[in-house]
Amino acid sequence: MGDFIGLDIGGTKILGALYDAGGTLRAREKKKSKAHLGCDVVLERIEDVLDTLVNQSKGPIEGIGVGVPGLVDREGSVVFSPNLPFRNLALSQRLSARYGVPVSVGNDVNVALYGEWAHMKDPELKHVVGVFVGTGVGGAMILDGRLYVGREGAGELGHMVVHADGAYCGCGNRGCLEAYASKTAMHQYIRAQAARGRASVLSDADSGIVKSSELRAAYDAQDAVVTEAVERARMYLGVAAGTLISIFHPQMLVLGGGIMDAFGDVMIPEIERRALAQTMPGMGPGTVFQRASLGDDVGIYGAFAQIRERVYERTR
Amino acid sequence: MGDFIGLDIGGTKILGALYDAGGTLRAREKKKSKAHLGCDVVLERIEDVLDTLVNQSKGPIEGIGVGVPGLVDREGSVVFSPNLPFRNLALSQRLSARYGVPVSVGNDVNVALYGEWAHMKDPELKHVVGVFVGTGVGGAMILDGRLYVGREGAGELGHMVVHADGAYCGCGNRGCLEAYASKTAMHQYIRAQAARGRASVLSDADSGIVKSSELRAAYDAQDAVVTEAVERARMYLGVAAGTLISIFHPQMLVLGGGIMDAFGDVMIPEIERRALAQTMPGMGPGTVFQRASLGDDVGIYGAFAQIRERVYERTR
Repeated sequence: MGDFIGLDIGGTKILGALYDAGGTLRAREKKKSKAHLGCDVVLERIEDVLDTLVNQSKGPIEGIGVGVPGLVDREGSVVFSPNLPFRNLALSQRLSARYGVPVSVGNDVNVALYGEWAHMKDPELKHVVGVFVGTGVGGAMILDGRLYVGREGAGELGHMVVHADGAYCGCGNRGCLEAYASKTAMHQYIRAQAARGRASVLSDADSGIVKSSELRAAYDAQDAVVTEAVERARMYLGVAAGTLISIFHPQMLVLGGGIMDAFGDVMIPEIERRALAQTMPGMGPGTVFQRASLGDDVGIYGAFAQIRERVYERTR
Repeated sequence: MGDFIGLDIGGTKILGALYDAGGTLRAREKKKSKAHLGCDVVLERIEDVLDTLVNQSKGPIEGIGVGVPGLVDREGSVVFSPNLPFRNLALSQRLSARYGVPVSVGNDVNVALYGEWAHMKDPELKHVVGVFVGTGVGGAMILDGRLYVGREGAGELGHMVVHADGAYCGCGNRGCLEAYASKTAMHQYIRAQAARGRASVLSDADSGIVKSSELRAAYDAQDAVVTEAVERARMYLGVAAGTLISIFHPQMLVLGGGIMDAFGDVMIPEIERRALAQTMPGMGPGTVFQRASLGDDVGIYGAFAQIRERVYERTR
C-alpha cells in the first residue's frame, strides 16, 4: 500500500500532508497561496507543495485529496470560490492528469466534517451535522453515512434564517445565523457598542477582523461587551442547533472552527441547553454535541480521508 | 403481478385503497378510526378495511403499505402517535402475520412526500423537500433518492425556528414555523385580533379549528384580518423555504396540505419570492416550487408506492 496526499487550499495558505494508508502523517508542506496574483500562480504553488510531498514519499502515491473554499461540482471542478481566483477550474482533472493518480476535490467545510467523522472511526455513526464557526459560519452533513451535497451546494448552515427580518448578513439578506454567530458578527457587535459609547478592550481593534484568541482573552478579562457578543452568538447557535435536530434528528452535532476552538468550553454546553429547549420533546436527547478535535489539521486529514475512501471504495 | 393495498390511518378516519401494480386505483374503503375507543377497536377497524379490500382483489395481494401520524421506527412499529392510541405497537409485524404479505409502515408525512415524489415518475429527481401545511406543519425529505429519517424522526420542519424568541408554539417552544404558518396559528391570529377589537368574518368561529375553505372564502371576500393572517403565514413559509434551500440545495420543494390546497395560488409565488430573497446568490434559482397534486389520496397512494418499491426493491 502506498501513501496519500491531503491538500487544504485556503485563501491565505496552502497546507499539504503526506499520510500512509493507516492515517499516520509522514510529512507536511506549507506555502502562501498568493491568491491576489491570479489563478496560474496559485496553481503553480499548489503543484510545488504536491511535488515536494511526492518526493518525500517512499512508495507510490495512491491518490490526492483536496479541499477548497467555494462551490465544487460533482466532477471536482471549482465553480466559484470567494477567496481564490478560481472560476470553473477543472482542478481534479488537471491534478489527476499531472500526477497520474485519482484526485478528489471537495468543498473545504464538507472535507472538514468528513475528516472529523472519519477520524472517529465509528461504523455506527451515520448521521452527523457539522457547524464550523470562524470568520463566517459553514456547515456540512453526513447523512446515511455519506456526505450530502444536494444539487451541489448543500450545507450553507450559516445562512439558515434564525430571526426573520433580523440582523443584516454579509450575504445581503437578513437574520442569518452567520449575522449573529460568526467572528465577523461578534466584532461588528463590539464596534456597534463602541459607537454607542460602550467601550471594550477590543473597541480599538483595527478595521480588520479580530482574532479568536483576542476575543477569548477579553472574555476571560470579563469585558462586558465581549461577553455579550459571546452570549449572543451562542444563543443563536443554540437556536440553529435546535432547528438542525428537528430537521435531521442526527446522532451527532460537530461544532468546529476558530470560535469553537477558542470558546468551546463556554459555548457548547449553552448551545446544547438552548437547542434542547428549542426541540420537540423526545427528539433532542440522544444527539451528541461534539467539539471538533482536529484543529488546523482538519483540512489535510479530511482531504486524505476522502481520497483514501474513494480509492478503497470502502463502504462504511 | 398481484395487487397492493395502501392504507392511510388518521385520527379521524381510516382510508384504504386497492391498487394494481401499475398504480391504477381499483377500489376504496373508508371507516371512522374511533381513536377514543382505544387501540384494539382501531386495530379491528383497520383490519375490517383491509379485509374488505383483500376480498375485492382478483389476484393475490403482494403487499400492504401504511401511513400513520407519529413516530414510526425502522421496524415499522408505531412508537408514539399524537392522534391514535398506539404506543410501541408492532403494527408492521402484526399485519404481516395476519395477511402473510410484506407490510411497510411509515410516518404519514414521509408517506405523503414519498407519494408525491413517486407519482412524478422522474428518475432524475433525487433531492426533494416537502412541507405540508394544515392544522400543523409537517415535513419530509427525499435525499439522494431515498426518504431520510435520521435517527428516526427527521423532518420536523414545522419546528424549525424562524424567529428566535418569537411566537409561542404548541410544542412548548417559541418561534417555530408552525406557530406562524399552520391553520391553527392563522386562527389564533384572527382570535387575537378580535380580542383587540378588530373584527373579522371568522371572529365568531367556534373554539374548534376553522376550515381551510372558510379561510379562503374570507380571504376572497377581502377580510382584512384574514388577509393579514395569510400574508404572515406565507412570509414565514418563505423564510423557512429559503433556509431549506440553503441547507439542502434541493431540486424541488413540494408544498402540500389543506392550507396549500386552499391557498397555493396566492401563497406559493410569494413563498418562492421570499425564499429566493433569503437564499445566497446562486443557490436559490433552479429549485422548483411545486404544489402537491394528490390531494386527499396522497396517503393511500404514498403507502402503496412505498410497499410496491419495497416489494420490487427497485432502485431509482
